Amino acid sequence: MKSARYPHSRIVILRMGHRIPRDQRVTTHVCLTARALGADGVYVSDTHDSQLADTLRKVTEDFGGNFTVETGVPWRSTISSWKNSGGKVVHLTAYGKPLPKIIDEIRSSDCDKLVVVGSEKMPGEVFLLADWNVAVTNQPISEVSALAVFLDWLFKHRLREDFPGARIKILPSEHGKRIVRSR
Amino acid sequence: MKSARYPHSRIVILRMGHRIPRDQRVTTHVCLTARALGADGVYVSDTHDSQLADTLRKVTEDFGGNFTVETGVPWRSTISSWKNSGGKVVHLTAYGKPLPKIIDEIRSSDCDKLVVVGSEKMPGEVFLLADWNVAVTNQPISEVSALAVFLDWLFKHRLREDFPGARIKILPSEHGKRIVRSR
Repeated sequence: MKSARYPHSRIVILRMGHRIPRDQRVTTHVCLTARALGADGVYVSDTHDSQLADTLRKVTEDFGGNFTVETGVPWRSTISSWKNSGGKVVHLTAYGKPLPKIIDEIRSSDCDKLVVVGSEKMPGEVFLLADWNVAVTNQPISEVSALAVFLDWLFKHRLREDFPGARIKILPSEHGKRIVRSR
Repeated sequence: MKSARYPHSRIVILRMGHRIPRDQRVTTHVCLTARALGADGVYVSDTHDSQLADTLRKVTEDFGGNFTVETGVPWRSTISSWKNSGGKVVHLTAYGKPLPKIIDEIRSSDCDKLVVVGSEKMPGEVFLLADWNVAVTNQPISEVSALAVFLDWLFKHRLREDFPGARIKILPSEHGKRIVRSR
């Protein structure tokens, strides 16, 4: 499957360190952000979470697109097999190289990209496995917002509008709520 | 106090619907995002949360800047007094007008701006009180990432680098963690 926004490659997020119940809301925000801003899917490492997967499946059924979420994925072998298949790995971390200095290099690669976003305790190995350690900012920030800004820059600030197969569409409005249900 | 990033105006976030413990992590992400991406502070509506305020005070002491967090603020009178002082109100909502169509108008206003971000149950009144209802995307998304993308666009994708008075600085690195403690 190719990304509609980024025709040469797939963009999938690897969400590290997911714990139930502590991380359920933040990981849901990671998934909604990934979907809305044009990624193809999310792998959630280590922990199975059928509730999270169901929530995102429902959002995708209602609002369209082909977004997928897979939970309970072993992170080390996921990264290895991604790289063995010719894909590259971006790790978002405050310790990385500044986004403005590295985004052109990342964009110019037409490989599939796995974007690793973490919790506080990221294994040091990930810094070495990543092709690019990228700092959206060298300040403490949320992994949700780091992912949002990274994807928006990756797609050159062309926000995604095409979500085929939607049952529900929100219509832009100055001062109210307008939706259309198509089936 | 003027925003260092945006010399003509202050940018303050109003975080609605904060509940303890349910929203503590997401509201922390809202505050970290606001600070890292150049806002001046956050008002957290209705609920006092000294732990949240302490966390952000500690981050600002360590990493610099003049960011402030005030919790337990009544939202309706906060919006009224903001408007009475000549400020304008931006409400981030999936139901609003698309960001790309409205950002120039918002940027060209040199008023102070209160950026309202919500939880699921935003009072309908906020849609009417807002000068601009803005949809980063008309898709379900996180308020954390909506805020991040909005601030990044508002500041024309010039990510903030100047945080005066920092005790700790993170140094960009290709494959590791490097920090400097200045005192």
